Amino acid sequence: MGGDYAPRHVVLGALDALRESKGRLSLLLVGPERTLYRELEQVQRTMGNESMKESFRVVNATEVIDMHDPPTAALKAKKDSSMTVGLSLHREGKAQAFVSAGNTGAVLSASTLILGRIKGVGRPTIGALVPTESSPCLLVDAGTNVDCKPRHLFEFAVMGSIYVSAMVGTQNPKVGLLSIGEEEIKGNEVSIETFRLLKRSKVNFIGNVEGRDILKGKVDVVVCDGFVGNILLKFGESVPEFLKAKLKAFAGKGLLNKLRMWIAQGGLRTVMKDLDYQEYGGVPLLGVNGVSIIGHGGSTPKAIKNMIFRAEEMVRRNVNAQIQEAILKYS
Amino acid sequence: MGGDYAPRHVVLGALDALRESKGRLSLLLVGPERTLYRELEQVQRTMGNESMKESFRVVNATEVIDMHDPPTAALKAKKDSSMTVGLSLHREGKAQAFVSAGNTGAVLSASTLILGRIKGVGRPTIGALVPTESSPCLLVDAGTNVDCKPRHLFEFAVMGSIYVSAMVGTQNPKVGLLSIGEEEIKGNEVSIETFRLLKRSKVNFIGNVEGRDILKGKVDVVVCDGFVGNILLKFGESVPEFLKAKLKAFAGKGLLNKLRMWIAQGGLRTVMKDLDYQEYGGVPLLGVNGVSIIGHGGSTPKAIKNMIFRAEEMVRRNVNAQIQEAILKYS
Repeated sequence: MGGDYAPRHVVLGALDALRESKGRLSLLLVGPERTLYRELEQVQRTMGNESMKESFRVVNATEVIDMHDPPTAALKAKKDSSMTVGLSLHREGKAQAFVSAGNTGAVLSASTLILGRIKGVGRPTIGALVPTESSPCLLVDAGTNVDCKPRHLFEFAVMGSIYVSAMVGTQNPKVGLLSIGEEEIKGNEVSIETFRLLKRSKVNFIGNVEGRDILKGKVDVVVCDGFVGNILLKFGESVPEFLKAKLKAFAGKGLLNKLRMWIAQGGLRTVMKDLDYQEYGGVPLLGVNGVSIIGHGGSTPKAIKNMIFRAEEMVRRNVNAQIQEAILKYS
Repeated sequence: MGGDYAPRHVVLGALDALRESKGRLSLLLVGPERTLYRELEQVQRTMGNESMKESFRVVNATEVIDMHDPPTAALKAKKDSSMTVGLSLHREGKAQAFVSAGNTGAVLSASTLILGRIKGVGRPTIGALVPTESSPCLLVDAGTNVDCKPRHLFEFAVMGSIYVSAMVGTQNPKVGLLSIGEEEIKGNEVSIETFRLLKRSKVNFIGNVEGRDILKGKVDVVVCDGFVGNILLKFGESVPEFLKAKLKAFAGKGLLNKLRMWIAQGGLRTVMKDLDYQEYGGVPLLGVNGVSIIGHGGSTPKAIKNMIFRAEEMVRRNVNAQIQEAILKYS
């Protein structure tokens, strides 16, 4: 029931994932059952009579936490929300992963509360894959933990490394600490102390990176607190809109410009696509005892589908067991 | 003597400013006099025998603080640096403003030390003009003060407002506090407390803004600490390079794409120009008892020229007197 277009986009994405997975997956759709059955009926009518009944099941949950609910209060008040029910199924082993495009804060709190933390992790975190000139890099924390201690940033570095090596396939990923200069002494109080922690750890730490190094693809993991991470990601997401507005203004200045822009469109669209979070499909919550993927509120069916596949892959690659081992070993 | 291309770019920019100002300005060029005279001779030889001798004067300073000198130590060790001599001329009233493309940290420390702070200002700051979909907005602090207290951020808001209204001409500029959500309770400890300070002040505070609101031009002044500001600005500066690399890769995929990109180039170049700091020409140091403009190390002659004109304008518009009044009145 999560996201701006729930349940439509969630149901469409789920069915797409099932179709593509060819029997590999089975899904539990959690929410008010009458709403979900109605949605499924409508969707399947337009899709034709493909039968996929055996690969999914509707699990009833009578309540919905919406985007504007304050997370902690909502979790207390709505005991039978789709979020709580879904995560409980995961904890009980009836599901191996959980995926939601709902209220980010609530998914986060509920996941930590219901699944618990991996041993040795003080603060679960969210990482986001960012496009670069070469392969995507993981920005961690992407907005979860705003006030961090050096130890937390160290944990983000470890969890980010494991995630990137397991999921992106980069061997011994390079980790950079986001700061305002390359030198060890450049930064704020927390980042300078974090530099020391990382330097003497077993993380493949290459030192501070600056704002300009991210898109260059200088490192595979960029470590920062969630305040900086959130601001940076949202800034990045706004760049395509900004360019579109500027190009439109340019095209407005005469027919020749208009023609030029029209011809260039195809290329620009391809490049812009790279800046589109939907291609990446949700962000993983790292550090909880389970697999919980959180999607953008505006997730399309494609994004939902990608989130499901990402969850499957995190289970298959045993990311959490690797994190638990590394948190102890890397310190 | 400041910047990667000193003294060449500085001298060229200075002479350009003099030419354009048509006698309005007179400049003191501060640095090792033999080096400067040699440079002037070479430059004037290529420019023809225009005589502008009466509008500038070389002031000797035997030492140079370079980009890699640690600011505080360098200021102590090099008492006769071009920076110290130039700023001292300003303090003594022999110059009305100071402009440098040198070591940012050193210009900052030297300006605060030699010129002193405006009464009521705890932390002088640097603001940077950022392009948006509408008119440019001032991001303040742009990298000077990394660990800030709420009171400092409040001062940045006041100084930023005055600067934008005096220099950009925006009446009663809208001020936003950079955070991770619009609601008053969203943010880190410092930003949440700053929100309270700004809300009850006389600043035209419209609330929190997010990363995505900056390029949209939602506000005229964006307030943040220098850690976030520096990272964001450098990230923004790297966007054109990133797009160029992506477009190049796209153009590489076939002749048609290449042709398309070639045709579109003009438009893209125009748009990219908007992201170019050089058009804006340096950033003002706000809160010191004087006018001190700091340029990018890679400043072109054009950037130097623009810095000089900006300094002139700050003097003419009496920005500092306005800041002093506002700091007391807005609290």
